Amino acid sequence: MEVSKILHMNSGVGDESYAKNSLLQQKVICLVWPIIKEALEDFWSTQNIPTTFTIADLGCSSGPNTLMIISNLIKQVQQLHKDLHNKPFDYQIFLNDLPSNDFNTIFRSLPNFLEDLKTQIGADFGRCFFNGVPGSFYGRLFPNKSLHFVHSSYTLHWLSQVPEGMEIINKGNIFIDSTSPKNVVEAFYRQFQKDFSLFLKCRGEEVVIGGRMVLTFLGRTDEYPSNKDYCYCLKFLNLALNDMVRERIITEEKANRFNAPTFRPCPEEVEAEVLKEGSFIINEFQVSRIDWNFYNIEFDASNVFVDGSYNFAKGIRSVYEPLLILHFEEAIIEELFYRYRQIVKDEMSKRKCEFVNLTISLSKI
Amino acid sequence: MEVSKILHMNSGVGDESYAKNSLLQQKVICLVWPIIKEALEDFWSTQNIPTTFTIADLGCSSGPNTLMIISNLIKQVQQLHKDLHNKPFDYQIFLNDLPSNDFNTIFRSLPNFLEDLKTQIGADFGRCFFNGVPGSFYGRLFPNKSLHFVHSSYTLHWLSQVPEGMEIINKGNIFIDSTSPKNVVEAFYRQFQKDFSLFLKCRGEEVVIGGRMVLTFLGRTDEYPSNKDYCYCLKFLNLALNDMVRERIITEEKANRFNAPTFRPCPEEVEAEVLKEGSFIINEFQVSRIDWNFYNIEFDASNVFVDGSYNFAKGIRSVYEPLLILHFEEAIIEELFYRYRQIVKDEMSKRKCEFVNLTISLSKI
Repeated sequence: MEVSKILHMNSGVGDESYAKNSLLQQKVICLVWPIIKEALEDFWSTQNIPTTFTIADLGCSSGPNTLMIISNLIKQVQQLHKDLHNKPFDYQIFLNDLPSNDFNTIFRSLPNFLEDLKTQIGADFGRCFFNGVPGSFYGRLFPNKSLHFVHSSYTLHWLSQVPEGMEIINKGNIFIDSTSPKNVVEAFYRQFQKDFSLFLKCRGEEVVIGGRMVLTFLGRTDEYPSNKDYCYCLKFLNLALNDMVRERIITEEKANRFNAPTFRPCPEEVEAEVLKEGSFIINEFQVSRIDWNFYNIEFDASNVFVDGSYNFAKGIRSVYEPLLILHFEEAIIEELFYRYRQIVKDEMSKRKCEFVNLTISLSKI
Repeated sequence: MEVSKILHMNSGVGDESYAKNSLLQQKVICLVWPIIKEALEDFWSTQNIPTTFTIADLGCSSGPNTLMIISNLIKQVQQLHKDLHNKPFDYQIFLNDLPSNDFNTIFRSLPNFLEDLKTQIGADFGRCFFNGVPGSFYGRLFPNKSLHFVHSSYTLHWLSQVPEGMEIINKGNIFIDSTSPKNVVEAFYRQFQKDFSLFLKCRGEEVVIGGRMVLTFLGRTDEYPSNKDYCYCLKFLNLALNDMVRERIITEEKANRFNAPTFRPCPEEVEAEVLKEGSFIINEFQVSRIDWNFYNIEFDASNVFVDGSYNFAKGIRSVYEPLLILHFEEAIIEELFYRYRQIVKDEMSKRKCEFVNLTISLSKI
């Protein structure tokens, strides 16, 4: 399975789309905003200010978060620029994702987005040149020394491929699970090391000296295989799939051949790759948590049918559905996520589940 | 009507799509290729070769021509580079069109396109960074001095807007026609001057000194209003529309409110704007012609149902349909182009019709 040719979030703006189900990812961006802000402040106070400030958002996807982060970054830079300097400058914004991402939807919302931004910022606002960059960030995407600031959130836990042989040595699981043997954990970790190290090497060539990069991973804090709640997200999907295998709705052979191309690193694993690769130094490393019940905690929805598990399951579906449809078939998706939601609902009623986020702020040396 | 928010060719890859009906535009690119080749050769022999060669195709649309021109440009540059130098260098390719263009289809074809290109060119081939740039070329799209080579074909005859008041002073016509009064011609010309001059100013800021630009217009060679065959393309569409007005399928009031946002300049009009604006010097100016029967001349189709007029009408439909649907309604399109084809077929049997192309090769000073 060549992940770069198939991975994308659910397209469009419909009920099951990623655009309509990406509140979790939005909350994560808000949660780590202080680190992004600090990185910008630091860059602005120590570096020569370029005439065109280039920002890349890697794995931008398509939805409200895509332009929310860009809007926040531009507003922050405008503020810094106003405080420290006063010569006008331009922005060049690179929105990157795999070629199967829905760029059309982003591009069509740009004219209104820019009009709104100009109204909010006012006359000081420089020109803003937008670019869509289709391609895998596990490879070069930009010319040498062409980027000042790189942001990527909830993207680097996606691997470039499922490690080979998983259909044999990880039978009955779709990811590292409590029954996975040690060599499954090792194979996923090796793939993460290879991918993340290549990511750092490529960005090392593309980012100017002194340029900044803030990356947020979906991560973990203990050893793999883990029994901690933050690993339950795929464990529960596995339970739902295995139920369907038992009921012969899905064949065992087909289920065995599916593994999720993902790895959730712990802080030490991220740090080790940065140190080993050598292009960047670490300015800050933060571990944060976000409750699975992120929807209800804030909104306390008056609609009793819309509970936290419903929204959680829809969010996971909007991310995993394209991968699952390609491997299984569209007909099983509704049933799979119905079962998934029941399991999630049951578990969420028993315990508090959280995601762990790792955020790392880097400088190019 | 804000052209920048609505103008696009027919999307996708279906029977009525621009992608399947853009043979004319392809033939034009081939026809003017010697001028493009000469501009590249001249750049390569007189300028310092950059480590990243940046190419912008403005109004790239979505179809086989989008990547055909890029493929030709890269192959030509590779050949020149091999002959003259030998240090490796990268390409940064900017594909620009309005935000409503179908960028997704281009992006999804890029991985295979790049694989094919690598196979054809071989080991010498540098990295290729692709970018989609959504926005109107009647405004800034790129940072200062960031482009080495700009190409644009069959795009600059589109105006940024229909001149104001046409619904009153150009009643019964959808463009400058034999019955259009003089002030209609003047208003369309003024809009062309304003738009093309802004285009030149913007590119003048974006192109490096010594950088090249090759532009091909759909043009004319005599005075407006013209009775020459190359102006019949919209005249016949007007005839078909007026037939439908007479039969009360379309209201007269609605037809009066539609004018095509286009202008076909003559060589003197193009030259005058370049000289007046002053950012570029003219290296070469060529007038070429292409027969409306471009399909049959080459293919001599064995299918008797597919004649030249059929393909010509489909080509015009793939370009004008989105504009027409927005103003009228989808229900009239089939009928309109049925009538259009009958008129075109009749006229093409009586005479040889041609398009006039103006190609201008410029250097930034």
